[in-house]
Amino acid sequence: MSPAEKGDGTANPTPAENSTINGGNTSEKQSKTELELQLAAAYVSDAQYNRNVCFEKTPQGIRLYNLYNHWGMLLVTYFFIILDLALAVFEDPALIPLPLWATFLAELICLAVFTGRLVHFAKVIPWQKFWKDTKNICVVLIILLTLVDMLIYGSMKAFGYYGVRWSRVLRPLFLVNITEGRQVRRAFRSIRNTLPEILYVFLLFIFSILIFSLMALKLFGKRKLVTNEGTPYFTSYLDIVFELYVLVTTANSPDVMMPAYNSSFFFALFFILYILINTYIFMYVFLAVVYNNYRKHLKEEMKNLVRAKRHKMVEAFRILQVKHGGEPVVCQSHWNQLVRLVQPDISNSHRELLWSVCDEDKKGFIGKVAFLQLADLLNIQIITLKSHIHPLQTWFPHLYNSHPSRLVCQMVQHKAFVYVYDFIIVVNAVFIGLDEENPLISNAEWAFLVLYMLEILLKLYTYDPRSFFSRHKFWNWFDTIIIIAALVATTVNFALKSSDGYTSRQVLDIVFILRVLRLIRIVDSVKRFRTIINTLIKIGPTIITFGQLIIVVYYIFAVVGMEIFKDKIKFFAPDSTASAQNYCGNPLLKDTAFAQNNYCRNNFNDIVSSFVLLLELTVVNQWHACALLTSGFTTVTHTAARIFFVLFHIVVVIIIMNILVAFILEAFFVEYTLAKSDLQTSVEKKIQELELGIQQDKLDETLVGNMETHENELGPSELSKGKPTLMFKIASKRYRTVDALLQRIFEDDLSPEDSGSSSEDHEGDPDNPLSPGFNFQNPSFDGIN
Amino acid sequence: MSPAEKGDGTANPTPAENSTINGGNTSEKQSKTELELQLAAAYVSDAQYNRNVCFEKTPQGIRLYNLYNHWGMLLVTYFFIILDLALAVFEDPALIPLPLWATFLAELICLAVFTGRLVHFAKVIPWQKFWKDTKNICVVLIILLTLVDMLIYGSMKAFGYYGVRWSRVLRPLFLVNITEGRQVRRAFRSIRNTLPEILYVFLLFIFSILIFSLMALKLFGKRKLVTNEGTPYFTSYLDIVFELYVLVTTANSPDVMMPAYNSSFFFALFFILYILINTYIFMYVFLAVVYNNYRKHLKEEMKNLVRAKRHKMVEAFRILQVKHGGEPVVCQSHWNQLVRLVQPDISNSHRELLWSVCDEDKKGFIGKVAFLQLADLLNIQIITLKSHIHPLQTWFPHLYNSHPSRLVCQMVQHKAFVYVYDFIIVVNAVFIGLDEENPLISNAEWAFLVLYMLEILLKLYTYDPRSFFSRHKFWNWFDTIIIIAALVATTVNFALKSSDGYTSRQVLDIVFILRVLRLIRIVDSVKRFRTIINTLIKIGPTIITFGQLIIVVYYIFAVVGMEIFKDKIKFFAPDSTASAQNYCGNPLLKDTAFAQNNYCRNNFNDIVSSFVLLLELTVVNQWHACALLTSGFTTVTHTAARIFFVLFHIVVVIIIMNILVAFILEAFFVEYTLAKSDLQTSVEKKIQELELGIQQDKLDETLVGNMETHENELGPSELSKGKPTLMFKIASKRYRTVDALLQRIFEDDLSPEDSGSSSEDHEGDPDNPLSPGFNFQNPSFDGIN
Repeated sequence: MSPAEKGDGTANPTPAENSTINGGNTSEKQSKTELELQLAAAYVSDAQYNRNVCFEKTPQGIRLYNLYNHWGMLLVTYFFIILDLALAVFEDPALIPLPLWATFLAELICLAVFTGRLVHFAKVIPWQKFWKDTKNICVVLIILLTLVDMLIYGSMKAFGYYGVRWSRVLRPLFLVNITEGRQVRRAFRSIRNTLPEILYVFLLFIFSILIFSLMALKLFGKRKLVTNEGTPYFTSYLDIVFELYVLVTTANSPDVMMPAYNSSFFFALFFILYILINTYIFMYVFLAVVYNNYRKHLKEEMKNLVRAKRHKMVEAFRILQVKHGGEPVVCQSHWNQLVRLVQPDISNSHRELLWSVCDEDKKGFIGKVAFLQLADLLNIQIITLKSHIHPLQTWFPHLYNSHPSRLVCQMVQHKAFVYVYDFIIVVNAVFIGLDEENPLISNAEWAFLVLYMLEILLKLYTYDPRSFFSRHKFWNWFDTIIIIAALVATTVNFALKSSDGYTSRQVLDIVFILRVLRLIRIVDSVKRFRTIINTLIKIGPTIITFGQLIIVVYYIFAVVGMEIFKDKIKFFAPDSTASAQNYCGNPLLKDTAFAQNNYCRNNFNDIVSSFVLLLELTVVNQWHACALLTSGFTTVTHTAARIFFVLFHIVVVIIIMNILVAFILEAFFVEYTLAKSDLQTSVEKKIQELELGIQQDKLDETLVGNMETHENELGPSELSKGKPTLMFKIASKRYRTVDALLQRIFEDDLSPEDSGSSSEDHEGDPDNPLSPGFNFQNPSFDGIN
Repeated sequence: MSPAEKGDGTANPTPAENSTINGGNTSEKQSKTELELQLAAAYVSDAQYNRNVCFEKTPQGIRLYNLYNHWGMLLVTYFFIILDLALAVFEDPALIPLPLWATFLAELICLAVFTGRLVHFAKVIPWQKFWKDTKNICVVLIILLTLVDMLIYGSMKAFGYYGVRWSRVLRPLFLVNITEGRQVRRAFRSIRNTLPEILYVFLLFIFSILIFSLMALKLFGKRKLVTNEGTPYFTSYLDIVFELYVLVTTANSPDVMMPAYNSSFFFALFFILYILINTYIFMYVFLAVVYNNYRKHLKEEMKNLVRAKRHKMVEAFRILQVKHGGEPVVCQSHWNQLVRLVQPDISNSHRELLWSVCDEDKKGFIGKVAFLQLADLLNIQIITLKSHIHPLQTWFPHLYNSHPSRLVCQMVQHKAFVYVYDFIIVVNAVFIGLDEENPLISNAEWAFLVLYMLEILLKLYTYDPRSFFSRHKFWNWFDTIIIIAALVATTVNFALKSSDGYTSRQVLDIVFILRVLRLIRIVDSVKRFRTIINTLIKIGPTIITFGQLIIVVYYIFAVVGMEIFKDKIKFFAPDSTASAQNYCGNPLLKDTAFAQNNYCRNNFNDIVSSFVLLLELTVVNQWHACALLTSGFTTVTHTAARIFFVLFHIVVVIIIMNILVAFILEAFFVEYTLAKSDLQTSVEKKIQELELGIQQDKLDETLVGNMETHENELGPSELSKGKPTLMFKIASKRYRTVDALLQRIFEDDLSPEDSGSSSEDHEGDPDNPLSPGFNFQNPSFDGIN
């Protein structure tokens, strides 16, 4: 054992393990106990998914831990979280009112599940660690507070008092504080870390608004100008501050400047200067500050994650290692058992490929450095392509190999086939645009359906159905589902129409949507479009993290908004004859722009309306109608209600949206500048070496897109060339987990001592398994989990 | 001569120079002719300012070239360009109408100046090079076309026909195509290079809009919904496309979705999906694509610039070199003459400092590598602080050094002094906010003025007036000017009021603005605010480049807009009684939202109105009122006028604004991550060594801000410590030229062979003046100038 490795060994030594390892030092083939393999597998799995849970190292503990991480358990947890959140739909103010006992019962079940999950977690990790973890304390607190609130609210209701279900605000926090919410937690941590820097810019920005408002008050206050609504223009300081804040979001431009501009040309200068400074400079500076800080903090977090990952892999290695010629190594049989435990669904051939990447020299065992990359290797998505023989060829070999049949196959594989169908799609688009009540047009729809069906059938005839419908062939699945659904919907519609002459509007809507969706396929024909879409899909998983974050914020604002504003504004169906319709059921709104613009449906009367309204406020990123909305809401409540909207703007638009932009910029930057990782390259090299790869020209195609097009199927023509029937390829630069992508982003920025065991070293110098920078003495995980 | 250097020598050998250099190889002190020094100075100056003009190497040529680059000539050129652009104010449709002969005369004078400048340039560079340069051909073409247009327009007018002054569109191109417009040209080149990548995203974006529009047509077209104005909702495909395009800019949200949302909840989903995909994803992808491409292309350009700069410096070295022990070197006397020629206003001490940085070992001569950094050294802004003795001390030494006087000085230097005045400013802000017609308040204004004057006088008493008003003390200048102006304005106002009781509104406005501006000074008291503002000021010069770019685009759109839309919409003063006021003088606009919102002044009737309108369209980044504006304009002209507005949006918002964001992000990124350059560090080290620096604690303060605060003046207290009376410091990370900043941004990305002669090599290994990567064989300058 080299001194460096001994340093690792002392990191967290369990006496039982140490004795096992040190005891049998001389034998080359040591059998590892089931426990050891299970433990190592748990470590590798944790490293692969960047989990960082300090579970108990007993057979019982590992079994419980594996159960805890089982996808079924996760599914159940997320189901109940969604149920819990969805309760807002049924609770007062409800979209679909349910009796109180029903929602209470549902909520109690949810709480029971969360408690169960927490108890499970408490059994997995040591007791004192459990209570040191803020997220567990949070969950316990939320559950307790919710119970208290339910008790109070229930008894208030029972005695007919008015109660507020304030604990609903806490619900989205479950999403953050469950063990699996680590990405959401990290996003929140990013925001928290960015806040101090933003704060100063924000204060300067507010200062600038205050100064400009003061100037506006002095310049315009005494001029007796009136706004378009006839109210005095710029006379109250607080109103000016609010108006100018809204101007930053450009929502009330140019309305807010028109009275002044109408009175003199030169006043336009004031507003131009204001907009340049506050809308442009400050907003861009916000973005720049957020971007830089986000990047900086993310880098730190990723460094810690990588360190933790390596630490876990070292632990796993330490458990599995045997001595071979004085060097600690892991032999193939243990490695195989380990991989089977970590990823039971992995194919044998895939596993062998990974082994051959690790064991370059076919020695039958691998050193520490080669072992450490296992977690990353498992995270590389490798697609196994089995080139089956077409079933028709098996069943009717004579017929399938006949000349006309081959001609059909060649026709389908020809490029012109694609062009013809692109043309058909364009023609179809024109037909869709025309009036469908013309019988010619509606009959043409049948012709198009037949053409599309024919295309799918021809392709199924030419290519093997199993590879046509393999998991990663997005467009094939898309096509088939859309066409079959359209066929069904059109038939139903036709049947309804011919039976009683009545056309169901809903069915027609579905038919129309499906028809238009068919047109999207044309995007797949242009390579550059495919590239853009693939990039978008690659950054998709992380966007989901942001989605959760936004849902948390939205939910909190929606619940608070509902309590404050519910039923202040009422919506009447357009065909209603109630006179209250003209002022949204609130006399205060009579003759306001809010009512005149028919904005009554933008209200906080139920959770769905609230979400739509908040989305409008976000999306109209620059608030557009918020001025109207806010004036609507502040008219019916109080001017202080503006605080709610300004706060929402600051939280969502200034902070969260900028972080989203920061992430997209960063992700695109990586996509544009980085090539594949070294590990991926070495896997690819190995695939090439073993002659298991798809030919290079096909490969190029494939690297562009991980969603296959019809051009690179494995058709029967390739089968005849005597190629191996099993092929691998790397699913482009896609990663299994979001963390893996994020780590990839900052991989190049990691300091040398962190990447001391990276694969390059290993490839260039396989005799130096332990690089000097390999020290894991108590890495600080405080901030990670 | 080493082979590498011979390679350089053959790059552009003039026989005359070669003979001079090779002739006197053995003597150590060779006197250089005036021509040689002039030539070398021209090269160094070109390298310093990144000029890349191939001037003639005759005494006459160099003199002409120096004259061409003289700042006076530049000033004249820019004055006439601004005059030429400003002519639009006086031409029909005019803000201030002038007779045709007057504008024609002014334009002819401008053209004459531009022609003269071009002829001058033609004399500087070889004839064939002149005609190879597109920018010269452009200028010639623009001048000719303008003359033709003036001739046609003049004769048309003379015979009473209607004419269009189409050549006005070409005017802003002068700004781009003059020799000094190289930064604007580079920005345009960046845009041109980014276009192909943007194009594909844009096409996909348009495709997405078309598909969504088709779906909207099918879903809503037959439902007989009506908009708020009572017109049919979503029935014409082209209207839908336009509406949805505007929705991307979020201008008409939520109006455009309200009819559908009012009819059913589920239709909100359609709009939410649309907004997520098109407003969020595509707009962010635009930004990401622009950012990445901009960065990539800028890097390329900067690499070329650095290569060209080094090439010029090598040329200069080749001219000045003498042999010393077999090594080509430049001796101090030549170097001094050179620096004096390049920068005549440099102080002797500053020059000696630079020399001591180059000549580390005080050998009296420097090698090639040390010489090459001269251009960069000259670009580092070094502030020479002369610590004068306070004039009062000279005149009344006894009085000034007396105990009360010292006490006053100590008081002013105390931190509390700053806090007291910060408090006074806050109190003043409150007083400003109160009603100034209250006599108490208006009298308090005098008290504040006296307090501020007192502050300035006390500071002048304590600190030396010459250092108080030195060039880089921004806040001192700001304070003094604002206070004195406020004093004058308030006195004038008071005099006017007391003489005839009449208060001039204009004077009052100025008084108010000055009062509020005084409050800004408080920003200077918070260190973090100062940092942010300094960063903004540092990226300021480059923003000016973008300003020019935006003016070019605006001007073209404004001129075209004026021709299309002039006098379609008329503005009547608010107190006018014309009934036409209600519909902007155009019966077509009766009862439209445009007229109702009082938008009549948003028109294209003169160049200033056009600029304000275009700024509204830009600034309301997301167009807000554009929907209204566009509908206003399209009502009075034709629906095709929408093309004008969409085009403007694409050019300005999607392309130019994104590039601006890209630049700001990049600049902030550099400010956050990079430390000072090695060269700056070595200059600073030298300053420290020579004990000419300000003490470290002062230096820290200084590095934070290049705008001095009152805290780091050189007060009399320091003088008494027997410090040298001359001190240097580096003006933070500021650079003299924008190019220098840009080069700095990408400095670290430059490949090793490009930085083969960077200062690190020199410092680490002064015996190796010629690094191997030093090859300048015909660098490709095609793209640079």
